[in-house]
Amino acid sequence: MKNNCVFCAIAAGEIPSFKIYEDDKFLAYLDINPFSKGHTLVIPKEHYPCLAETPDDVLAQQIATVKKVAAKVCGALKADGFNVLQNNGEAAGQTVKHIHFHIVPRYAGEKVSFEGGKADMDELAAIAKTINEHQTHQ
Amino acid sequence: MKNNCVFCAIAAGEIPSFKIYEDDKFLAYLDINPFSKGHTLVIPKEHYPCLAETPDDVLAQQIATVKKVAAKVCGALKADGFNVLQNNGEAAGQTVKHIHFHIVPRYAGEKVSFEGGKADMDELAAIAKTINEHQTHQ
Repeated sequence: MKNNCVFCAIAAGEIPSFKIYEDDKFLAYLDINPFSKGHTLVIPKEHYPCLAETPDDVLAQQIATVKKVAAKVCGALKADGFNVLQNNGEAAGQTVKHIHFHIVPRYAGEKVSFEGGKADMDELAAIAKTINEHQTHQ
Repeated sequence: MKNNCVFCAIAAGEIPSFKIYEDDKFLAYLDINPFSKGHTLVIPKEHYPCLAETPDDVLAQQIATVKKVAAKVCGALKADGFNVLQNNGEAAGQTVKHIHFHIVPRYAGEKVSFEGGKADMDELAAIAKTINEHQTHQ
């Protein structure tokens, strides 16, 4: 765990989050400045700053987790598609230096700015509840 | 190879591209509607439509290839950072249904629209030359 890293603190449970998925190595939770409804971040619990500094085996598990979490989020919210976005460096809009993949659910006819919206905690809590209580029917 | 898939045709060499990287399973080439200088796509040569339909082992190799190609592109072009973007579904802006990861080099102070720019073939050829002739000094 890295000192002063917000995402390490979230992974450690020191800062609360709207959890969508968790296993021993990865955590997914709602972005509090969402680009769209259900915007979720997937992080490794261990600290790596960016793509270039993350080992290939961790990236392999992280992208598989992104795939799994995206299916859960988009299924529950009836999204029509999603973007996966991963930023490296301040010039690319990376604000927290702990590698994270954004899952941005998309809805037909709705544009997205990739700049973040307003955080409404009650709304986020309701979205997390919808996702986590959603039963997949297969 | 899937019929009528532009990226399968590029992978097969039937449609020319400004190649940046190639191995037996993956290909990287410049996007002809670039979001920024050096905008590169990384595709598996085998056809998979989107993230949900791509096996985990292919995704693992693809994200490792993205990491490697991004280092090459950004090193050669002296980019200050980069975005990795992967779109799923028309609602998310996926225009070609053959899984591809975008590498979008970013330069300090320059905004990017994620909507694509104009294709200038001479300029793309010059950028590919710069990237492919760049020697890394380690």
